[in-house]
Amino acid sequence: MILYYVSGACSLANHIALIEANMAYELVSIGRDKRTDDGRDFLTINPKGCVPTLELDDGTVLTENLAILAYIGEQQGALLPAAGLARWRALEATSFMTTEVHGNFKPLFYPDTTQAEKDTARHKLVKHFATLATQLGNRPFLLGEQMTIADPYLFVMLRWAANFGIEVSGRFGTYLARMTSLPSVARALAEERLS
Amino acid sequence: MILYYVSGACSLANHIALIEANMAYELVSIGRDKRTDDGRDFLTINPKGCVPTLELDDGTVLTENLAILAYIGEQQGALLPAAGLARWRALEATSFMTTEVHGNFKPLFYPDTTQAEKDTARHKLVKHFATLATQLGNRPFLLGEQMTIADPYLFVMLRWAANFGIEVSGRFGTYLARMTSLPSVARALAEERLS
Repeated sequence: MILYYVSGACSLANHIALIEANMAYELVSIGRDKRTDDGRDFLTINPKGCVPTLELDDGTVLTENLAILAYIGEQQGALLPAAGLARWRALEATSFMTTEVHGNFKPLFYPDTTQAEKDTARHKLVKHFATLATQLGNRPFLLGEQMTIADPYLFVMLRWAANFGIEVSGRFGTYLARMTSLPSVARALAEERLS
Repeated sequence: MILYYVSGACSLANHIALIEANMAYELVSIGRDKRTDDGRDFLTINPKGCVPTLELDDGTVLTENLAILAYIGEQQGALLPAAGLARWRALEATSFMTTEVHGNFKPLFYPDTTQAEKDTARHKLVKHFATLATQLGNRPFLLGEQMTIADPYLFVMLRWAANFGIEVSGRFGTYLARMTSLPSVARALAEERLS
């Protein structure tokens, strides 16, 4: 299986999840010119042109971060429990991460965003991270004692918050330190040349 | 089970899915003042304040459109197949709907959006609907012969496209007519006073 990624992008969440799930993968990075690091046109692989993109061993190409996280999580089990409230909380939190959290970082990445748009996005991000801090409480992972697919995504969002100077709850300092100390996270960061 | 909704909002997708899944539900509408139609403060039910919100019979409150659609789809079966590529395509398409399609409608709803922001959002929506039209082809539903959780969401997004004058492929004319003729869709529209 091949994970098409951009270093530090939201695909880092899928990268961490693949390691947690003990699944074999190769990494192929995508440049700003939408070419793979081995010289192919990425748009022929995923016409939407975005990472993460997961190519399964039979050549099937899967896109959209949440779908890829759910795919990985269901292979592994604990990352996305098969039934019960824990399952719905994991999907709920991951969906919130894709729409409200990641969604409000987008204006900060685009070059043509006005200051007013950036201010609005920052205001929403502060609010959404406060919601997440309340949900985290003093537990080791967002939804309790076990890592779920929501955690690698939250980890990436917190890295972005730090990069953009978005103020988040002190609880996330402990959380980030715990996540960074995990072998899966350390390995993913090293493989993306972020450590 | 109670579906908290706003007439014509993205919660219409969950409403249609509940009917398709033959699940019993009550409807409670939410006003602009964030109060329920029976006078309660909606923020005490869902502190995020957004619809859809699904209250299960045991009082559990589930939020985020994709998570609620997945919950309904997995109860029913065909709307979200339990395994195989059809499962991942349904989650992929629904996630695309929440992040890229719904996400780019948001600037059109906000009162303080600049014209430049609106133009950017419209441009992206045209592109994303073109991606969806290619995916639909001449099939009855987005992913083939069977309705999946992606279809009620696409139906709502196409209604919004019509409301905002976003030009979409002619294929969607046939698709909208077929969807609107379904008893589930007709009932949901009637219950939300949209027909």
